[in-house]
Amino acid sequence: MTARIVDFLRTRRPEGPCLVVDLDVVRDNFLAFRRAMPDTRVFYAVKANPAPEVLSALAELGSSFDCASVAEIEMAMAAGATPDRISFGNTIKKERDVARAFELGVRLYSVDCEAEVDKVARAAPGAHVFCRILCDGAGAEWPLSRKFGCEPEMAVGVLEHAHRSGLVAYGVSFHVGSQQGNVNAWDGALASAAALFRELAERGIQLRMVNLGGGFPAKYLKDVPGVPNYGRAILDAVSRHFGNRLPETIIEPGRGMVGNAGVIKAEVVLISRKQADDPVRWVYLDIGKFGGLAETMDEAIRYPIRTAHDGDDATPCVLAGPTCDSADVLYEKAPYSLPISLAIGDEVLIEGTGAYTTTYSAVAFNGFPPLQSFVI
Amino acid sequence: MTARIVDFLRTRRPEGPCLVVDLDVVRDNFLAFRRAMPDTRVFYAVKANPAPEVLSALAELGSSFDCASVAEIEMAMAAGATPDRISFGNTIKKERDVARAFELGVRLYSVDCEAEVDKVARAAPGAHVFCRILCDGAGAEWPLSRKFGCEPEMAVGVLEHAHRSGLVAYGVSFHVGSQQGNVNAWDGALASAAALFRELAERGIQLRMVNLGGGFPAKYLKDVPGVPNYGRAILDAVSRHFGNRLPETIIEPGRGMVGNAGVIKAEVVLISRKQADDPVRWVYLDIGKFGGLAETMDEAIRYPIRTAHDGDDATPCVLAGPTCDSADVLYEKAPYSLPISLAIGDEVLIEGTGAYTTTYSAVAFNGFPPLQSFVI
Repeated sequence: MTARIVDFLRTRRPEGPCLVVDLDVVRDNFLAFRRAMPDTRVFYAVKANPAPEVLSALAELGSSFDCASVAEIEMAMAAGATPDRISFGNTIKKERDVARAFELGVRLYSVDCEAEVDKVARAAPGAHVFCRILCDGAGAEWPLSRKFGCEPEMAVGVLEHAHRSGLVAYGVSFHVGSQQGNVNAWDGALASAAALFRELAERGIQLRMVNLGGGFPAKYLKDVPGVPNYGRAILDAVSRHFGNRLPETIIEPGRGMVGNAGVIKAEVVLISRKQADDPVRWVYLDIGKFGGLAETMDEAIRYPIRTAHDGDDATPCVLAGPTCDSADVLYEKAPYSLPISLAIGDEVLIEGTGAYTTTYSAVAFNGFPPLQSFVI
Repeated sequence: MTARIVDFLRTRRPEGPCLVVDLDVVRDNFLAFRRAMPDTRVFYAVKANPAPEVLSALAELGSSFDCASVAEIEMAMAAGATPDRISFGNTIKKERDVARAFELGVRLYSVDCEAEVDKVARAAPGAHVFCRILCDGAGAEWPLSRKFGCEPEMAVGVLEHAHRSGLVAYGVSFHVGSQQGNVNAWDGALASAAALFRELAERGIQLRMVNLGGGFPAKYLKDVPGVPNYGRAILDAVSRHFGNRLPETIIEPGRGMVGNAGVIKAEVVLISRKQADDPVRWVYLDIGKFGGLAETMDEAIRYPIRTAHDGDDATPCVLAGPTCDSADVLYEKAPYSLPISLAIGDEVLIEGTGAYTTTYSAVAFNGFPPLQSFVI
């Protein structure tokens, strides 16, 4: 929560739930990453928050962009990024989308299997590719599935196939899991990456780049280590595994770049109990799982919520959204403590909501409009 | 899958994932409900699919509408429904939204606590209200939480409070859980409803209406009982519990009205394995959890998927969406059997997707546009 956001909400009084993002915080975050890892290129993960103002501010500071689709590539370029500062980082691409990205000048692509290499070789001849490898995601708060990446042994063949197909087998990527609280989580994957560099070198292919992915946390209810701690731990691990043949490195922060820059203003629509003597109150907000808070899925991300009554006596509440969907419950297994004095019609501020909120919002579920966004 | 849908897709060849809804199926479903329960008013649950063509077709047939928001009320009225055919069925309403609905002429509101009664009494004086009671949801495939409704003992006080506040304490509602496979699931809740009628009568308040909710299933992979079976079982249970003082009844089908009327056309973007000798293929489509298939959450709803290779040998696959979100996996715990001959670029048809798809779709997650919809 920043003074600028408080001031904006007080003077503008926007109607309905909305996200307010403070660009100063985004800029500070970018500079913190650059200071902590001065020789690492920062590719902002556009999917976290593609607001044009966020992209322009980062483009001006020299950021590069990790894009999940052609639409995101076009947004990054509209914000001022040249194609050499763009990575098409989705391992799942239609061949016609690869062709379109190539036309736009993009030369860096993510792959995790030979079929994807074939698409890139046909539609983006000569491009650079990096192969994503699997990582266990221990320590991350947002679930990491096996959806992206292949086992490291398979990556050898994928990169060799890329090389033989006329592409530049450029490097290796991995992701340690989003909202990763352990600064040492990169170590194991870096060991695998270094082994891949050696294995490919034996086959005459010189990899050059390690894409360290994202995973950098935003502060929600729990404290998290600062960016400098991540920088130190990761660069130590790179040195440990690569010795003095240091690779080029890339990071792809999304949540860590914009999460703490945003606050959602919402309203208490109803407070009720399920039976007269129930100790647990149900608190219903005008925003829920389908209005932008999708990351409360399985209660994974636990946002700090501020009210005008903070400090008053509090009791556990089940927190839910406004839709007629019974799955639209935010926190129930672990109830959320809220002031007894909280009342229907009160405003609440949901902090740390700058990432993965606006674009996750449903287009019109139950007739509710998507989350509004203001970037200041 | 209907011949009209097949024909539309063949001749129009729309680009990108899209839903095609056949209005003839919707009309047939409406008529089946009316035949099976001739004395019951049908309130279509607009949230299931608010396409204007669907609403108009149902309005013409005489349907009433269960609306979750002012926007849905306005859509139903734009489609030709008069306000006496509209229920504001969300138990979680802002007072200003109640006021707006009242201005529009809506006189029927859902409540489940005294605070909500107070809002309706202030903003919609003299309106009819029904109190939603909790129901266990056993037998339903979509999770039913305790989000809506109160314990029956509490409902006595809520309805009495409504009566004293100048509202018409009109009846009781409940929901047996969406995609309810057990035709007898209404029995227990009807027993509670009848007990409430007696209890209120002793206090001088004559309830008149039972809102039987939705829960009527669409056919996905498993067979489901037909509408006549539900109609018989429910009407038997109503007679059993209410004797010859039969209440007015309402049903609110959503999934049961439009689910089987729609088919999503999608494309296979990638097929890969996580290691060279992995028996499980990962099949990635250009639609996933954030593009309209939100009901695959926890693998709850299992859609039938047709390919041009059906009948060929098949093996289990993990099915996933196209976004860079590791949670965007459709079926993994229970893998999905797909033909070995399925190839990248192939079209697949996802059946039973007429309900709860378009409006659930994220507004722009990963830069992907919301699900297109065609109603024919």
